[in-house]
This record gives sequence, C-alpha cells and structure tokens, in this order.
Amino acid sequence: MPVKTKDRGADDSCAGSCPVARTARLIEGKWTTQIIRDLMTGTKRYSQLQQSLEGISPKVLAARLRFLEMEGLITRTVYPEVPPHTDYRLTEQGLRLRSVLGEMANFGRSL
Amino acid sequence: MPVKTKDRGADDSCAGSCPVARTARLIEGKWTTQIIRDLMTGTKRYSQLQQSLEGISPKVLAARLRFLEMEGLITRTVYPEVPPHTDYRLTEQGLRLRSVLGEMANFGRSL
Repeated sequence: MPVKTKDRGADDSCAGSCPVARTARLIEGKWTTQIIRDLMTGTKRYSQLQQSLEGISPKVLAARLRFLEMEGLITRTVYPEVPPHTDYRLTEQGLRLRSVLGEMANFGRSL
Repeated sequence: MPVKTKDRGADDSCAGSCPVARTARLIEGKWTTQIIRDLMTGTKRYSQLQQSLEGISPKVLAARLRFLEMEGLITRTVYPEVPPHTDYRLTEQGLRLRSVLGEMANFGRSL
C-alpha cells in the first residue's frame, strides 16, 4: 500500500508514465520559457538576457540559468577578458524544446 | 524613453510580440500542466484530480483551478446533490492546449 508523504519526490511517482510532468519540472519556473525562447535565436550574454526579460530580477535570472545549466539544457561560457563576460547557449537537448515553444507561441497568438 | 518599474505588468511589455510569454503566464505554475493533462481525457471531479496529482496540497490545487477558471481555460460545475460535488472540464480554449502538452510529452519521453 503506498504511503502518503510530503516527500518532495512524491510528484515523481508517475515518472515512468508522465512525460508531461517531466518536461513541466524543467520549464515551469516563471521566466524559464522566455529565457529559452531568447536562446533559441543564438548565444546570448547575461546582459542581453537581462535587457530582453524586462522586469526579471538579477537573482531570479541567475537562479533560472543555473537550474537550466544543471539540467543540461544550456551551457555557460566565461570569457576571462577585461571586463570578463559570460554567455549562454542551448545544448542539443535544450534546442529540442523548440517544438514545445513553437506550440506555446501558436497558442499565445490565438489569445 | 521607457521607465523601469517593478510593476507586475512589466512582463506584459512585449505582449504584442511574445506569444510564448502569454502562454507561459497561463501554464507556468507548478502542477498546472498536469491538471490540464488530466482534464484532456475528460471531465474530472475535484477528488479525482487530487488523487491523480499525488503530492499536491488542497490549497494549491484549489488555487490552480480557480486561476484556470478565471482565465477561461476550464469550467467548474457544482452539483447540489447529497453530498454535493464539483467537477471541472476544459473549455474550447483550454482544449487547444493539447498540442502544447503533446510536444511537452514528446520532449519528456526523450529525457
């Protein structure tokens, strides 16, 4: 008999059968799909993302980028120039989100 | 010159050109796409959703359903029986999210 717990892993209970949930875990954070959308058109500097995502706090942007990097959807490159800069691009796996974003755009255009 | 504010409406600044952002606003809450996925297979009672979404709190489930109802993606029907019950179904607009969820499922299956 399954034991009900407040374990954070509980929403992984359908991991084998809920591909929607697996994708949702990656993209459901506020701003996440907009960050990915910006990177679909190519490598971006941190400052470019910040400018594009009007209203995002530096803390949230940094957290979202770190999460996407940890999940293998983006890579971060630091250029030790003067001044140093960092840029971000989608990995092959990240690029495969294009069709999800495409359907989100289709839906959004119909609103 | 645009004035930078912390106005919550700031992320609507690209409303005319960011259909991805308009869809994200509707579906980015934790559990939201999983609620919509459950409703894609037909009308569900509140208790059925609660059972299916293992780990969701009643408070979060109620908040998500209320939001989706306000946004016109689902309708709620209360049956004044004894005991009373409430069920939820997707509106025509909500059903049009099927292709977004389909692509999320495709991506999730590849993870």
